[in-house]
Amino acid sequence: MSDWTPPTQDRVEAYFKELNNWGRWGRDDQLGTVNLVTPARQAAARALVKTGRTVSLARDIPRHPELIYHATFPSSRERADVVLDRFDIVFHGFTVTHVDALCHVGWDGELYNGRPFKDSLTAAGATWCSIDPIFERGITTRGVLLDVAAGRKEGFVTVGRPVTPKELDAVAARAGVRIEPGDVVVVRSGDETFRRANPDWVARVSPHPGLHLSCLEWFREKDIAAISWDMMDERPSGYPGFGMSTHLAIPFLGLALVDNTNPERLAVACREEGRYEFLFSAQPIRLAGATGAPAHPIAMF
Amino acid sequence: MSDWTPPTQDRVEAYFKELNNWGRWGRDDQLGTVNLVTPARQAAARALVKTGRTVSLARDIPRHPELIYHATFPSSRERADVVLDRFDIVFHGFTVTHVDALCHVGWDGELYNGRPFKDSLTAAGATWCSIDPIFERGITTRGVLLDVAAGRKEGFVTVGRPVTPKELDAVAARAGVRIEPGDVVVVRSGDETFRRANPDWVARVSPHPGLHLSCLEWFREKDIAAISWDMMDERPSGYPGFGMSTHLAIPFLGLALVDNTNPERLAVACREEGRYEFLFSAQPIRLAGATGAPAHPIAMF
Amino acid sequence: MSDWTPPTQDRVEAYFKELNNWGRWGRDDQLGTVNLVTPARQAAARALVKTGRTVSLARDIPRHPELIYHATFPSSRERADVVLDRFDIVFHGFTVTHVDALCHVGWDGELYNGRPFKDSLTAAGATWCSIDPIFERGITTRGVLLDVAAGRKEGFVTVGRPVTPKELDAVAARAGVRIEPGDVVVVRSGDETFRRANPDWVARVSPHPGLHLSCLEWFREKDIAAISWDMMDERPSGYPGFGMSTHLAIPFLGLALVDNTNPERLAVACREEGRYEFLFSAQPIRLAGATGAPAHPIAMF
Amino acid sequence: MSDWTPPTQDRVEAYFKELNNWGRWGRDDQLGTVNLVTPARQAAARALVKTGRTVSLARDIPRHPELIYHATFPSSRERADVVLDRFDIVFHGFTVTHVDALCHVGWDGELYNGRPFKDSLTAAGATWCSIDPIFERGITTRGVLLDVAAGRKEGFVTVGRPVTPKELDAVAARAGVRIEPGDVVVVRSGDETFRRANPDWVARVSPHPGLHLSCLEWFREKDIAAISWDMMDERPSGYPGFGMSTHLAIPFLGLALVDNTNPERLAVACREEGRYEFLFSAQPIRLAGATGAPAHPIAMF
Repeated sequence: MSDWTPPTQDRVEAYFKELNNWGRWGRDDQLGTVNLVTPARQAAARALVKTGRTVSLARDIPRHPELIYHATFPSSRERADVVLDRFDIVFHGFTVTHVDALCHVGWDGELYNGRPFKDSLTAAGATWCSIDPIFERGITTRGVLLDVAAGRKEGFVTVGRPVTPKELDAVAARAGVRIEPGDVVVVRSGDETFRRANPDWVARVSPHPGLHLSCLEWFREKDIAAISWDMMDERPSGYPGFGMSTHLAIPFLGLALVDNTNPERLAVACREEGRYEFLFSAQPIRLAGATGAPAHPIAMF
Repeated sequence: MSDWTPPTQDRVEAYFKELNNWGRWGRDDQLGTVNLVTPARQAAARALVKTGRTVSLARDIPRHPELIYHATFPSSRERADVVLDRFDIVFHGFTVTHVDALCHVGWDGELYNGRPFKDSLTAAGATWCSIDPIFERGITTRGVLLDVAAGRKEGFVTVGRPVTPKELDAVAARAGVRIEPGDVVVVRSGDETFRRANPDWVARVSPHPGLHLSCLEWFREKDIAAISWDMMDERPSGYPGFGMSTHLAIPFLGLALVDNTNPERLAVACREEGRYEFLFSAQPIRLAGATGAPAHPIAMF
Repeated sequence: MSDWTPPTQDRVEAYFKELNNWGRWGRDDQLGTVNLVTPARQAAARALVKTGRTVSLARDIPRHPELIYHATFPSSRERADVVLDRFDIVFHGFTVTHVDALCHVGWDGELYNGRPFKDSLTAAGATWCSIDPIFERGITTRGVLLDVAAGRKEGFVTVGRPVTPKELDAVAARAGVRIEPGDVVVVRSGDETFRRANPDWVARVSPHPGLHLSCLEWFREKDIAAISWDMMDERPSGYPGFGMSTHLAIPFLGLALVDNTNPERLAVACREEGRYEFLFSAQPIRLAGATGAPAHPIAMF
Repeated sequence: MSDWTPPTQDRVEAYFKELNNWGRWGRDDQLGTVNLVTPARQAAARALVKTGRTVSLARDIPRHPELIYHATFPSSRERADVVLDRFDIVFHGFTVTHVDALCHVGWDGELYNGRPFKDSLTAAGATWCSIDPIFERGITTRGVLLDVAAGRKEGFVTVGRPVTPKELDAVAARAGVRIEPGDVVVVRSGDETFRRANPDWVARVSPHPGLHLSCLEWFREKDIAAISWDMMDERPSGYPGFGMSTHLAIPFLGLALVDNTNPERLAVACREEGRYEFLFSAQPIRLAGATGAPAHPIAMF
């Protein structure tokens, strides 16, 4: 976006105060922006379901027998053979589709709504802002696809040209959708194509293309309930102190993040259906006290 | 059910042939009874959604820091603190809500649709009847609650008095519902109350109350797409060779089982809503190649 | 010990300064008391080996297929069958024999030799006082058994009657041994018998019998290289602020702890051999960066 | 070895019968070749210890925070901070130093000493030939280093030029050592250098350089108690049906294998000490019922 000027460091330093949602739903709230999903918005979202066409927004968790899971030794029980498997993951990271709990990231020693990071976590999980309120409620609301990748000549967002608020607006305009409060925005930055084109790219080590830090302004302005994204944030962010990039939406806004989304099938479906809005539904598994949980979100038309 | 006579061993020996669904949807089918969920049935199920009231059918996966999951050492990234967690489970068993893959149980050395057990499994998962076709499709259809526990004077099914086909019919009649092909039947046998009343009961070691082996006949006759149950099968089954009890629905019928369901909130909701049918939806996480996968099923009214 | 008076809280408050080994082997030392194992002492210890009789000082890690380890699905490779297993433990705790790294416990925010706890640890392990220097050197030196349990009428140390420095001296006198600097002291408090006699005792929840906090004085005075113990410390310690009990030897003294030792076979061997000194050898597995490591220590006569 | 002729397929087919140790130490033996370590040989081995110089034969288990182990969230206990870690490995494979149990590999459906593979294993471990007898006894005997790599111009064994019995004899002659029954032979094929020179080599996928299948003859002829090796077997072996290569020493001979040994420090020590024999000692951790166990073997001069 040649005509876009990134915010100054000073501007960014003001984000925490300016965009802040602490106290907005009470000082005891642990749900954050998912509060924006009202029964009325859910009813409107359900009305978007016409044919029932359903597409998965999750990635496969790959077969990796030694490290992630594997089948156990089978047992013979009379005439039956039975086999189990064991499944062991650190779901945060850049592979497994999951929803972040609001305790996942703190700021200046505090979690969303001002509780001390240190006193709110133990080896057994969180006592503040664990994933529980989110898996209890689920995230079922209107979803909107912003297919950023489709507008890039490389077919994906590149290092050095992050997604900006201006670009998100342009993509929405192109799709003919208006973002409403309480929506889940599914952002397709083209992660799958990017990784295929960059086989030597290593998560956490190589620079990450993705959303520019200033998208925090856009998240707050549009008052979205959640973002469901494939490529996530630009890293490094280019702003000293703000290395966690747009993941700072967690402590600043209490925003629900659906990381490692797979929007590929959805992009096809939206083109075929001729619309970029749908019912979005994600039910993270009930991992009590955890800092997040794997989920299998779907879009329904 | 005093006037009910259990089937003879001979009768039971005939089940494999008589109830068998192998080849019913082609010799290459790996989806089993989920094939019974047609677009028409899904449309009818969606029409059951009126208020959008949604209830969870999953159990909490408990905080158990040393063995199941725990939060990792937090990292400080400039002004942010970040914490992850690691999650390690054998989801089969009697705790975690999950959907069984059809490779989970074989019979006489063969899996559903006649593939050898031994050649269809490796440490890296299954090459036949893994959970993939089920997580790809999801299980979204009409659900019906059969609250067996509500009709028992103890408030739960007891050891020695298993649930019979006759009792399932009686419970359905009481609820005023008719089971249709392609339904998911949610059976509440009162597992939560049972365990509270029997603190010394140990899964796999103590006798299990639950569904009598002959419920296999009922599953096949009603042509259900899946069963979502809290207490699962009676064990021991009382029939030599048939120790896997109603779990034999997996190899015989290709039936989808949603094990360790929590039907407590649903029982309340059905009473309050005055109806025992709803939209059922389960999207197991995309654990490619696995023998099953955790899920967070919901019921929507 | 009726004629023993526990130290006052004030006395205990002075331990950190008084017993402190920080800087004793240089400010960059990460090995702690294992420095006391000199080549001369090792040579003397080797000279204790006469018959080569070797006894194990480790506990069995129990078969617990779902949670700790299990065999994986076997693979057939031509005419061979191959089976692996997977092993997953939190070795700290009260079951697995292991050596603690000096980063395992800090005091007032600092680790042994004065490095900040917070900056010395990451999810990937420790950057200060990990187990590496200890597994690199091994702990091979003279070992001495103090069979405290043999002198107690119950056959084990009981809650409310902790092991005191005075009792350790009395036990050594009875065994006819003199503790020398650089020794490993194997303390048998009778944990195995205690647990058998108290089947309802729950680690971490019930009160722990064990060594009184003031044994820290004894560890420092005798200048032992390590303690290898079955029952570990008395908890609660009875001293506010000092709840970690004798485990505070880690930050105060830089003492190597060999937790969850099994001294049962050794007690038999010492009686039969008629001596309570032997060659002690522990080689923790090379778990780079870790907060400790499982080991299989042995005693050789 | 230009003047060496590999055995024919027929010759190799005869190995199972010809080299077989089944019954040699009784039909109930589960210890295999470790039986060859007699008290007399142990005494002779101890006599090799002069200076006490000790070198580690284990590899570091790398820091790999997401997959193998990681530190857990620290707990504050009054003035102390405490941190644990969790450790999860499939130790079989090509990374972790470990000793194989004799149940690890079967032949024609049978384990060492003729018990059925299928009936001797469960998810909870082995009921025949688990690692227990080996960790109970330990492997402490004379060790001999055969530095094959030092005699290769590349500095390591290469694909297509496997180590042969003839070469092992030549290396022993060069070192001036004679292999005796009950010895542990430490073979250095130069794995560390090989991997550094072949960064794209992938274990299990790329061809493995290593010992030729016919080394089985040599193992049996020399009557060694164990082999402790860095590069292990040539794969593929080139003999149909014998893909497990020299790992068939497990079912045929009952040979103890110390896989993923690190012989680098030992090679230096042997050169400096001017001798290739030493006391070898390995105490696998007490993983009851397992198919093997991690260990930290040492050599002492």
